[in-house]
Amino acid sequence: MERHIRYSHQDNALILLDQRYLPAREDDFPCRTTQDIIYALQTMVVRGAPAIGVTAAYGCALAAREVAAEADWKTALSHRLESIAEARPTAVNLRWGVERMKKLWAANSTADRQTLAELWLQEATRIHKEDIAINTRMGAHGAAVIDDDDTVMTHCNAGALATAGYGTALGVIRGAIDAGKKNISVIANETRPFLQGARLTAYELKEDGIPVTVACDNACGLLMRRGMVQKVVVGADRIAANGDAVNKIGTYSVALLAREHGVPFYVAAPLSTIDRNTPTGDHTPIEDRTPREVTHVGDTQITPDGVPVFNFAFDATPAALIAGIITEVGILRPPYAESIARAFNDAGLE
Amino acid sequence: MERHIRYSHQDNALILLDQRYLPAREDDFPCRTTQDIIYALQTMVVRGAPAIGVTAAYGCALAAREVAAEADWKTALSHRLESIAEARPTAVNLRWGVERMKKLWAANSTADRQTLAELWLQEATRIHKEDIAINTRMGAHGAAVIDDDDTVMTHCNAGALATAGYGTALGVIRGAIDAGKKNISVIANETRPFLQGARLTAYELKEDGIPVTVACDNACGLLMRRGMVQKVVVGADRIAANGDAVNKIGTYSVALLAREHGVPFYVAAPLSTIDRNTPTGDHTPIEDRTPREVTHVGDTQITPDGVPVFNFAFDATPAALIAGIITEVGILRPPYAESIARAFNDAGLE
Repeated sequence: MERHIRYSHQDNALILLDQRYLPAREDDFPCRTTQDIIYALQTMVVRGAPAIGVTAAYGCALAAREVAAEADWKTALSHRLESIAEARPTAVNLRWGVERMKKLWAANSTADRQTLAELWLQEATRIHKEDIAINTRMGAHGAAVIDDDDTVMTHCNAGALATAGYGTALGVIRGAIDAGKKNISVIANETRPFLQGARLTAYELKEDGIPVTVACDNACGLLMRRGMVQKVVVGADRIAANGDAVNKIGTYSVALLAREHGVPFYVAAPLSTIDRNTPTGDHTPIEDRTPREVTHVGDTQITPDGVPVFNFAFDATPAALIAGIITEVGILRPPYAESIARAFNDAGLE
Repeated sequence: MERHIRYSHQDNALILLDQRYLPAREDDFPCRTTQDIIYALQTMVVRGAPAIGVTAAYGCALAAREVAAEADWKTALSHRLESIAEARPTAVNLRWGVERMKKLWAANSTADRQTLAELWLQEATRIHKEDIAINTRMGAHGAAVIDDDDTVMTHCNAGALATAGYGTALGVIRGAIDAGKKNISVIANETRPFLQGARLTAYELKEDGIPVTVACDNACGLLMRRGMVQKVVVGADRIAANGDAVNKIGTYSVALLAREHGVPFYVAAPLSTIDRNTPTGDHTPIEDRTPREVTHVGDTQITPDGVPVFNFAFDATPAALIAGIITEVGILRPPYAESIARAFNDAGLE
């Protein structure tokens, strides 16, 4: 599954697997410029908070190569970095990836463009590998909350395709299976409007031979009421300082139903997804995307001409509905303000 | 909007507007035989509890015409009636329509086939007109719960298209507007998988000039959290003796979110949708439909080949989440076992 983000030194390009057309087509989407990277981020050729963090990091390296040899190349480059960081508003990992590059630049402020591009390419590769390692550790910690014979519901795709590899929520499922848990199966909510569950989660779990059934988002209540769901594990695009988790639109409904039916609801995300500068979920900017994703599925128009639609991409799940936040350093438990602060302190992060 | 179910005496056919292809195409689907009626019911050429009750009634008249002049025509006809009643399992109105025909037959047990067909066609026409009148009365009662400037969320299509005309849930909205309520707008949940909200509710409200915005089912939580929904009004396919309301899959999620956010949640349905022989929502058979409705939208396949899907068509909303049941005789309030019994008693029903 790790061919979906790869850097080609031969082509000087970041080659992405185009997630817009999966599972019908497995097209490559080569990014050679900052503009390509921003297009890929905004149209969701690549999506998923960790994956867009990695993509942003490679994007910085591409940007360093393309600024002309002007007196003010540093200003031009700073503008490009800001454009990458602003490509999407909700997932904090995007800005985190760019900020990490900026720090490296500050530490090598006399580097010329070519040297900086090399440093950044190495750093992007390091972030890429780190992310896989982080997800694997997250999976090992998360395995503890999954029992034999569990059916685990997940919303959207927080899998290998949403990260550098292995996945956050799906990493927990892979971790449980790797840890020897028997007879684990998954219910993938289809996740309208972009259908990441139906298209991407089903695709990657099927490739791995993990049993998966797709359900319309609307089926969640019935499935829980019938006792068909033992755990919920989802990813996150941003976790606030109080533990509220901003994730794909509809996650909040799943969490509320889970509480109603006594189903433990977990969020799996690296520490880089936690933004201590965001006090609560309600302080997170929620992306409002093109109506086309709602009005059409493929070439089929489903709404009448001229009828407006909402297409908010994320919602916030209140911390009170979350049984635990599974990270690479362990499972954080409520109260989250304290457990998050402790985890950051232990990891030497600000 | 009332051309979607009409009987043609010239063609001896029930002409349905084919709801599978709305809003893209406005095709007629003529039913000349019992088989046509059952096909139309099962594939959802016509859908919505009251509308399928009316269709079933006309179907009985068609059935009476097609049984051959055999000694045992009554047995053959009884079989046909049973096939119509069993075409779909959840909505109680389907069986209610057929039972009403059977009672008329019992009261005219010496009638020959031709006479019976005539009696049934008159009775079907009466049910058809009654349903519009019932919905109009329901709308007049329901207007009381809608305030000026309300945005009303609805799930699925409980409109003119789901009834003989005017609608149950959308009838309440029409009733409120007819009663002079100002600045009413509607949020139509798209209602996967069959997309009755996106396709049908949006279509008929747009035709009537009532402001409507379509939202993915997943957006409900965010919209309520932002205070963008003042009331929820939905229809029902079966209401149990305790007031649990079985309606389109996903209704339960909306009701739970409504409670969480203090948004009053109403069900609009005629007394014929209340089945006092069904003790609770959990005693209602839930239709399990073809995977194709989930795996494809139009010609676009959205899930990978070989991945199974769930396609349960309905869920039960517990009575405790329902602020009121809007009927043609007034608004029933909790405790429903009592208010339902009283309404049936007052109406002279069993």
